[in-house]
Amino acid sequence: MSSRMAGAALLRHLGPRLFAVEPAVSGLAARGVVPAAARILPARMFSTAAKDGAGAEEHGSTDQKKKPEGGQSKKAIVSYWGIQPPKLVKEDGTEWRWACFKPWDTYTSDTSIDVTKHHEPSSLPDKAAYLIVKSLRVPMDLFFQRRHASHALLLETVAAVPGMVGGMLLHLRSLRRFEHSGGWVKALLEEAENERMHLMTFLEVTQPRWWERALVLAAQGVFFNAYFVGYLVSPKFAHRVVGYLEEEAVHSYTEYLKDLEAGVIENTPAPAIAIDYWRLPADAKLKDVVTVVRADEAHHRDVNHFASDIHYQGIKLKDTPAPLGYH
Amino acid sequence: MSSRMAGAALLRHLGPRLFAVEPAVSGLAARGVVPAAARILPARMFSTAAKDGAGAEEHGSTDQKKKPEGGQSKKAIVSYWGIQPPKLVKEDGTEWRWACFKPWDTYTSDTSIDVTKHHEPSSLPDKAAYLIVKSLRVPMDLFFQRRHASHALLLETVAAVPGMVGGMLLHLRSLRRFEHSGGWVKALLEEAENERMHLMTFLEVTQPRWWERALVLAAQGVFFNAYFVGYLVSPKFAHRVVGYLEEEAVHSYTEYLKDLEAGVIENTPAPAIAIDYWRLPADAKLKDVVTVVRADEAHHRDVNHFASDIHYQGIKLKDTPAPLGYH
Ligand SMILES: [Fe+2]
Ligand SMILES: [Fe+2]
Ligand SMILES: [Fe+2]
Ligand SMILES: [Fe+2]
Repeated sequence: MSSRMAGAALLRHLGPRLFAVEPAVSGLAARGVVPAAARILPARMFSTAAKDGAGAEEHGSTDQKKKPEGGQSKKAIVSYWGIQPPKLVKEDGTEWRWACFKPWDTYTSDTSIDVTKHHEPSSLPDKAAYLIVKSLRVPMDLFFQRRHASHALLLETVAAVPGMVGGMLLHLRSLRRFEHSGGWVKALLEEAENERMHLMTFLEVTQPRWWERALVLAAQGVFFNAYFVGYLVSPKFAHRVVGYLEEEAVHSYTEYLKDLEAGVIENTPAPAIAIDYWRLPADAKLKDVVTVVRADEAHHRDVNHFASDIHYQGIKLKDTPAPLGYH
Repeated sequence: MSSRMAGAALLRHLGPRLFAVEPAVSGLAARGVVPAAARILPARMFSTAAKDGAGAEEHGSTDQKKKPEGGQSKKAIVSYWGIQPPKLVKEDGTEWRWACFKPWDTYTSDTSIDVTKHHEPSSLPDKAAYLIVKSLRVPMDLFFQRRHASHALLLETVAAVPGMVGGMLLHLRSLRRFEHSGGWVKALLEEAENERMHLMTFLEVTQPRWWERALVLAAQGVFFNAYFVGYLVSPKFAHRVVGYLEEEAVHSYTEYLKDLEAGVIENTPAPAIAIDYWRLPADAKLKDVVTVVRADEAHHRDVNHFASDIHYQGIKLKDTPAPLGYH
């Protein structure tokens, strides 16, 4: 990696860090929008707040606990254990409005990733994995055709499963065997959370119909169990399947982009949640969102093919550092 | 929360951020220890590196993939999908040596949390939860007596299960119902990862004996399934049980601390992994480690009693922002 690229990368990442620090020492805090630390330091605030209130609450009577005074039940619950959610603000001074992710979970997507990369299946299991994924594609394409948003919505409900299953199984193994994880638990869980953010994003673009909801219920039941067993039997095969699923996801989002560019689908403004999650400009469009989502999928593709390759070499995942924070 | 406290909290958290930034623009980079960005910006580096190598690799032949040239098979796997783990360094310039967690996962523990707080069980399910946990304590105490490190080791293999199970189930529900998580998926997964770090820490203090390993295998099988079913049936009850388990964990670590203070157990130097994870001083001792671990347990106690309280009020978890990054 050239030092110029390192520098560019450095600036890209530093940007948000710096934004988070600067308002605290300058304007907003003085204007009393929110305690200065809240913007940078929510985690610390929680327990400090807890301590503030501890005098009144510790060893409190049962009545006090069950019936907070003044009927402010909502606030009382929130603050009972001293865990008061901090008021976070964005760089423009408006309140942070997402509970499902925090400023420190956001990132700038690396859209320079190669979206055409493909793992050539050579071994028999790899060919089987590829065939399975390719044959799943046919009914999906028939079903959704050009309803790309619905396609994305349903795809993401499934895509968020493997990372969670793999992460959980590796976590349990690490505990059982008193072994380090090599970072793979976290890497796979990060993937799952990222996929769920994709789902939350497309939920702002389109809503599932009732039969799609029913389909997802069935699909999750089947896929969760199949992947669970599959991962126990052969993580090598399971990661390869996901690698190919991600290749197909990249392909689907490329088709989505084509139709957005051709004007077949209206390039509406980006959902607010997407703007905040991927740090997009305020005037970002749906096309920008699909572009960063596709980049995410390309990163997932790499991580999963990589994991499968590690297994192919007879090396344990835990002995190869996981690509943490890779996006 | 007073502004003085906010300020202190701010500095506590800003410290590491600033350390990460400053060396990059001053000393270490010039000394060529590592590309400047690597210290701050590993995530970005990965895919930039991927791009660098993409020309040679994309659509590469199968042979190229299976047999990296020059017999450097380990390196070739690591870099094949372009995911080269970045060299991270600590503030003292030495290499970051942990794959299972990264500098951005570390934190300064808030040891000011009240370790005596107790949720008074009043409802019947709460009393049942308390009774279950209390009665589990008796054989545990008989078994371990003053072998606190072994006690901690086995406790943590179990303690890391509920967060993972709860997080996974909430994740799947969020996907299935096209609903936001309220941050609870992440909060529970964070708890699970934190517990696994406790395990990795005590593994440096003592090693499990063969019968302890066998016990853990059995305990995990039983507890995972029990908690899985329990969480599906009543998350309210499940979180309450964990809240009480955490109260007992706090108690156990308090006993550990007493014996360390009394000199019954030698106050050995803190394991390196603990120093890096909790940002402890280089000369930290086992007592400091047990203190921050106990603070973690007190935080888990709060989160789980809080989650149970939310359910008791008939409110859904997803509608109450989760205490993310609470430690
Ligand atoms: Fe996705
Ligand atoms: Fe993906
Ligand atoms: Fe623990
Ligand atoms: Fe705990």
